[in-house]
Amino acid sequence: MSNPKIAVINGPNINLTGEREPGIYGADTLDSINREIAAHAEQLGLDCSFFQSNHEGAIIDYLHSLRHDYAGVIINAGAYTHYSYAIRDAISAIHLPCIEVHMSNVFSRDEFRHKSTISAVCVGTIAGFGKNSYILATDAIKKLI
Amino acid sequence: MSNPKIAVINGPNINLTGEREPGIYGADTLDSINREIAAHAEQLGLDCSFFQSNHEGAIIDYLHSLRHDYAGVIINAGAYTHYSYAIRDAISAIHLPCIEVHMSNVFSRDEFRHKSTISAVCVGTIAGFGKNSYILATDAIKKLI
Amino acid sequence: MSNPKIAVINGPNINLTGEREPGIYGADTLDSINREIAAHAEQLGLDCSFFQSNHEGAIIDYLHSLRHDYAGVIINAGAYTHYSYAIRDAISAIHLPCIEVHMSNVFSRDEFRHKSTISAVCVGTIAGFGKNSYILATDAIKKLI
Amino acid sequence: MSNPKIAVINGPNINLTGEREPGIYGADTLDSINREIAAHAEQLGLDCSFFQSNHEGAIIDYLHSLRHDYAGVIINAGAYTHYSYAIRDAISAIHLPCIEVHMSNVFSRDEFRHKSTISAVCVGTIAGFGKNSYILATDAIKKLI
Amino acid sequence: MSNPKIAVINGPNINLTGEREPGIYGADTLDSINREIAAHAEQLGLDCSFFQSNHEGAIIDYLHSLRHDYAGVIINAGAYTHYSYAIRDAISAIHLPCIEVHMSNVFSRDEFRHKSTISAVCVGTIAGFGKNSYILATDAIKKLI
Amino acid sequence: MSNPKIAVINGPNINLTGEREPGIYGADTLDSINREIAAHAEQLGLDCSFFQSNHEGAIIDYLHSLRHDYAGVIINAGAYTHYSYAIRDAISAIHLPCIEVHMSNVFSRDEFRHKSTISAVCVGTIAGFGKNSYILATDAIKKLI
Amino acid sequence: MSNPKIAVINGPNINLTGEREPGIYGADTLDSINREIAAHAEQLGLDCSFFQSNHEGAIIDYLHSLRHDYAGVIINAGAYTHYSYAIRDAISAIHLPCIEVHMSNVFSRDEFRHKSTISAVCVGTIAGFGKNSYILATDAIKKLI
Amino acid sequence: MSNPKIAVINGPNINLTGEREPGIYGADTLDSINREIAAHAEQLGLDCSFFQSNHEGAIIDYLHSLRHDYAGVIINAGAYTHYSYAIRDAISAIHLPCIEVHMSNVFSRDEFRHKSTISAVCVGTIAGFGKNSYILATDAIKKLI
Amino acid sequence: MSNPKIAVINGPNINLTGEREPGIYGADTLDSINREIAAHAEQLGLDCSFFQSNHEGAIIDYLHSLRHDYAGVIINAGAYTHYSYAIRDAISAIHLPCIEVHMSNVFSRDEFRHKSTISAVCVGTIAGFGKNSYILATDAIKKLI
Amino acid sequence: MSNPKIAVINGPNINLTGEREPGIYGADTLDSINREIAAHAEQLGLDCSFFQSNHEGAIIDYLHSLRHDYAGVIINAGAYTHYSYAIRDAISAIHLPCIEVHMSNVFSRDEFRHKSTISAVCVGTIAGFGKNSYILATDAIKKLI
Amino acid sequence: MSNPKIAVINGPNINLTGEREPGIYGADTLDSINREIAAHAEQLGLDCSFFQSNHEGAIIDYLHSLRHDYAGVIINAGAYTHYSYAIRDAISAIHLPCIEVHMSNVFSRDEFRHKSTISAVCVGTIAGFGKNSYILATDAIKKLI
Amino acid sequence: MSNPKIAVINGPNINLTGEREPGIYGADTLDSINREIAAHAEQLGLDCSFFQSNHEGAIIDYLHSLRHDYAGVIINAGAYTHYSYAIRDAISAIHLPCIEVHMSNVFSRDEFRHKSTISAVCVGTIAGFGKNSYILATDAIKKLI
Repeated sequence: MSNPKIAVINGPNINLTGEREPGIYGADTLDSINREIAAHAEQLGLDCSFFQSNHEGAIIDYLHSLRHDYAGVIINAGAYTHYSYAIRDAISAIHLPCIEVHMSNVFSRDEFRHKSTISAVCVGTIAGFGKNSYILATDAIKKLI
Repeated sequence: MSNPKIAVINGPNINLTGEREPGIYGADTLDSINREIAAHAEQLGLDCSFFQSNHEGAIIDYLHSLRHDYAGVIINAGAYTHYSYAIRDAISAIHLPCIEVHMSNVFSRDEFRHKSTISAVCVGTIAGFGKNSYILATDAIKKLI
Repeated sequence: MSNPKIAVINGPNINLTGEREPGIYGADTLDSINREIAAHAEQLGLDCSFFQSNHEGAIIDYLHSLRHDYAGVIINAGAYTHYSYAIRDAISAIHLPCIEVHMSNVFSRDEFRHKSTISAVCVGTIAGFGKNSYILATDAIKKLI
Repeated sequence: MSNPKIAVINGPNINLTGEREPGIYGADTLDSINREIAAHAEQLGLDCSFFQSNHEGAIIDYLHSLRHDYAGVIINAGAYTHYSYAIRDAISAIHLPCIEVHMSNVFSRDEFRHKSTISAVCVGTIAGFGKNSYILATDAIKKLI
Repeated sequence: MSNPKIAVINGPNINLTGEREPGIYGADTLDSINREIAAHAEQLGLDCSFFQSNHEGAIIDYLHSLRHDYAGVIINAGAYTHYSYAIRDAISAIHLPCIEVHMSNVFSRDEFRHKSTISAVCVGTIAGFGKNSYILATDAIKKLI
Repeated sequence: MSNPKIAVINGPNINLTGEREPGIYGADTLDSINREIAAHAEQLGLDCSFFQSNHEGAIIDYLHSLRHDYAGVIINAGAYTHYSYAIRDAISAIHLPCIEVHMSNVFSRDEFRHKSTISAVCVGTIAGFGKNSYILATDAIKKLI
Repeated sequence: MSNPKIAVINGPNINLTGEREPGIYGADTLDSINREIAAHAEQLGLDCSFFQSNHEGAIIDYLHSLRHDYAGVIINAGAYTHYSYAIRDAISAIHLPCIEVHMSNVFSRDEFRHKSTISAVCVGTIAGFGKNSYILATDAIKKLI
Repeated sequence: MSNPKIAVINGPNINLTGEREPGIYGADTLDSINREIAAHAEQLGLDCSFFQSNHEGAIIDYLHSLRHDYAGVIINAGAYTHYSYAIRDAISAIHLPCIEVHMSNVFSRDEFRHKSTISAVCVGTIAGFGKNSYILATDAIKKLI
Repeated sequence: MSNPKIAVINGPNINLTGEREPGIYGADTLDSINREIAAHAEQLGLDCSFFQSNHEGAIIDYLHSLRHDYAGVIINAGAYTHYSYAIRDAISAIHLPCIEVHMSNVFSRDEFRHKSTISAVCVGTIAGFGKNSYILATDAIKKLI
Repeated sequence: MSNPKIAVINGPNINLTGEREPGIYGADTLDSINREIAAHAEQLGLDCSFFQSNHEGAIIDYLHSLRHDYAGVIINAGAYTHYSYAIRDAISAIHLPCIEVHMSNVFSRDEFRHKSTISAVCVGTIAGFGKNSYILATDAIKKLI
Repeated sequence: MSNPKIAVINGPNINLTGEREPGIYGADTLDSINREIAAHAEQLGLDCSFFQSNHEGAIIDYLHSLRHDYAGVIINAGAYTHYSYAIRDAISAIHLPCIEVHMSNVFSRDEFRHKSTISAVCVGTIAGFGKNSYILATDAIKKLI
Repeated sequence: MSNPKIAVINGPNINLTGEREPGIYGADTLDSINREIAAHAEQLGLDCSFFQSNHEGAIIDYLHSLRHDYAGVIINAGAYTHYSYAIRDAISAIHLPCIEVHMSNVFSRDEFRHKSTISAVCVGTIAGFGKNSYILATDAIKKLI
């Protein structure tokens, strides 16, 4: 009756998806993407929560809040990916399987986007498939939990 | 009748201007500087909004809020200048002409202050003229919009 | 009647999967993994070819051979990932969508495994999910072609 | 009648102390540690305020708030230690003696934890003694003020 | 009756402004730009001298010649900005307020253009506003002298 | 009656010349280029052998095979240029004058293409002239032998 | 009746404390500092031995001599801190809890003083409190043994 | 009747060719080399101008003077090759095909000679063939214009 | 009756030993060296197999083939030592004691020869003793198995 | 009647061999190891002297003392290996064949242990075979002298 | 009757000696310093020529002019010391003993002043003694010629 | 009647001067050099003490012993020059004018010899003049004291 719960976290500027650089990220809005993820997760028997913030601290607070009731985390930390050791420590601290996701292929963009502070504390990474990066991560997390 | 609107954004610790290291930044407070900028902008036919925050996320939220009604941005991102790729992405995302401003000559201070994450997504940079850096940026933005 | 063809390429030492460091890679052999991929691909309406070699040149030759009849490529280049600019050029040259796959989370292992020569010429990257990295890549390539 | 006031600031993820990696940080919670510090400070004739936040901006705001009434600061900036030049500038700006504290020996952990942005603007550093790092810092600040 | 004198110095290749990469620098020639600067300076009560050379040594000689009669210097050292420590020493030696100017946003171009040998010995920097960089520098120098 | 023999060696992916990135390499195929080189060499009184392989080891084997009967080598090692110290050692070992050739201007492309492992053991380098790089190298080797 | 024994080791140039750069280290001599430490240790029920040498080898010999009878070590290795891997190995070899101490805040002085070879093999570090660094270390070691 | 004009530019110290390190550069003087180039160019239907200077600025001035009447440039910038971004900008500015030439194999000499500021703005590079580097460049430029 | 089997593997260009740079490697051919090793191994009660290839992939294939029947490996990977992470992974994968051997003292030659990708997965290293490096390695492996 | 004399030198902390990290170095003491070496050397017709010191200067003095009567040196410089250019110069100065020895595989331990100051002035290196590293070095030196 | 001739060359900004940063360079003018050098050289039986230029090319031209009649060179290349490989090549080319001189201790000033392009082609270096650096160099050159 | 006293300190391996690499250092012994220095100093009215040690600690002890009675120091720290921050601190601590001396031109030898830890705390440097480096330093120190 109660499905395992997973959280989908999006970091800074991802709220503008659909307006911001559509050449790179496509024209879907974050809301429409989240609806697709929710529908897909439901089919897999997973309950999805969604959270987006431009605040590093709010992302950490939210990660902490997951630690007792959630089974897994999908996180696109946006630009925080490249310098937030605080988010890295939060992921470590909650002891949940976490998947790093990027819509764009971060490795073919600016040099500074090639480094991730969180990769080493995540189970794995999925990058470059637009909104499908989230869908694939949902499939992946299903198999982990 | 309605002037173009520009926003003047100040980042962390700049609220203490006038108390903090007056040898470097002068003794004017941020409020008095903002009044000078507003008066100068008015002469140029520009409406000025002012925003200061020590929170990276709040600066990003504010940048986002400007994207439909504003004609340009003047930003002194304080120490975030040197590592906030999230603010950089926010500037990119809103597609407004943005000018990077520093009161001090960042290039003659600590090594870590020589690098700016946002220069590459701003129109230009003005640094080293104390409160006049903002006045000059106001002139510059007038010519851009 | 004729499904799109995709190729799954595995590089050096992956033929030993199942014996080699099972703590990292699991106990499935490459053959059993390939059978799972083939079955999954068939469900998606894709025809899968499999190729493994420890020879950089053989991987390049094989990539070239794909360029007229294939719709996409999934490649786990093993340790060549980290220095083979020749494989990178081969991927560029054949103008097919290519997905980089790793069974382990390369970003949490040795420093030299953090750099990929091929990421920048692939559509995207999937790493850290064991044999499921291939399954997810098959799903991903289905959506691309 | 009124003791000198000192502030003990803890940064991101330290609220989870006691649950998070007890092998490194021990099993005391932040609350119990704070009670020990308060008791010890009282013996030394010091009034202790406690603040914890996962938000970089909130830590800066709090530091600013101390500048007129406090005699000293003990700060464990958590992972912000390694990249927050904004917190560094806040410490500089308030002109109070500040002691950098870490529960773990940061120098024997990940490479990125070896660099501190704030060491150069603090009086000194105490690291590696678990909760006793704070107790020792309280003694140290007693002698400074 | 005698206005303060300022010198506007342009370095290598800037004599071709208007022909060279007009996409970056605009179509005004150096002469027409200098006339605009002179007119603007006159309004501010400043006498402007103009000097352009492709010779590093000639720029140094000219800087030396200013040291007794001039009140300030505006310098766009062109590519010498990035390696001429000799021009840096000349600026230091003459003890005049000097403003570094670039027409393009040097920080969004080639990596080698991000480093300036002279920033640390100038009062400040103005970059990215085309010919208006000079106009703004003239305003800035007016306030300095 | 017997002309001096020279070998023209092409490395990985050069077999696709004419299809691969014609914007950079032109539309001639390797075969047609080789025919032009052979004709030009014949005019100079040189006998030309041609060899292409995507296999590092095969290139080394071929270099070894030349050491008794050949008078010189023209080599475009493709991407192996940038990391194959084994090919470098092979060139050293055979004690023949060797000329490094590139069709594209490697110095204006990706950073990793700026470094050559073999330059230091070749007589000289010719890069950037498309198929004419080979023709010029043939002229150069004629004068060396 | 027999207190636990701890050793306080001082490295090169610390014998001149009180004469050498009193602005940084204060005017107390090493002897007077040692007397304060001994008195403080006695109150804590610890027996203190003192050793100072300018010879790297002598410090190593002394460290070795402690390994059977001592309960802990406080070491200020002076400039050897920054390059003596031999002292690091000696600390490792004797399997005693060791605390790294500096009178000055090494992190706000020359770049080369920011790196310590011994931090990683010590329990923790106390730096920046003048002679009180030793007093605090004595308290710290009391709690460790 | 009027042949296309090409310029052959030699930078610092090349006027001493024939005396300076004949082991590296051979015993021909610059004059005799220039006569050979002129004769060869005449056969190809090209008019050759020659310029040598030890002055970076003079080389830039000369490059500028070519921009309306010349069809191509051959340049051996000597040691300026390794640091003159001003010459690089001059080559860019004149929009003529330019070939970089070195008599010695710069890649087998001092480390600092491996980097060229001008390669990226030239059509191609020819290095290591003594005076024949110029002859080959003349052939190359013939095919370009 | 059946001696333990060890394999002696030589990488690229070592087949030319005796002709190639005899000043560094001596005048013995690989065959004569192998005969000496075989004789020495026989005295130690070891059966020796020999393999040389210029192909990285062939060396990996051969390493794999050893994993069930062999007791140890002696490998001189030639220039592959310095970049082949694929050979490193092969050595790891076969779980046999492996000794790294070089005839020359690689540490006194080119900088690039100072780094070995395989040292960390070998038992030990013997370098600088010409053909005796193999003899010593045979002795060493005798004691390991 | 008089055998050639060789010296076996051990550097800092090696006197604790047998107690110090027996997992890495084994449980033999330095004395028992030296006895084994002496016996082995005697069989080879070599007279062995032994020297151990934790003092860099003493090792240098001892190296100097060997220069007239000794035929070769085996040296395990311990941690001095990684920074003592003074020991390097001493080895150079005495013009004796010297073999660098390590009991552990220094290349699979801490990064700082990968660099040796003395490799370039030694004949060769033997590392990773525990006490047998010395035995092998004795064999090696026998063949050199 | 004719003394050996030596040249004393001063580079950029040294003509301002006496005005420029007298705290570093003292209050003597270049003319007065040259007169002291001339007098001292005369006592040593040396004829001194003096040359100062801010032009890199002029310094090279002058160096060339010395090559037939002069016995030695004393050069203070000013800031060109730190980047002029062209002056380095000129010194090499003229085959005269050359001494590098600095009035200030360049090693205790800005980081960029620690590197000299010319040290490696000079006989030696004298730095830090104000005008006496030239006097000492004159003594030194006397002994060399 | 009592002349000012100066100390001439020589570091490791300099006791072998005359035997060690005479091509670089000449054939004079340290004793004969010292006698020349003493004679020269006497003429200048200076009393010279001489000290040589291969022990870093002994050099530090000796430097300390000079601090009350000596007027200046000439030091050739040999290889310790390149890493001994302890000797650097000793020079700082004794507050005497110190001159760094090298017989060879350290800047044209191994890369590691280009860096000096002590330059920044010495008055100046004299390098490259063999034994005359000391003689010149004696002259220099005469003018300083």
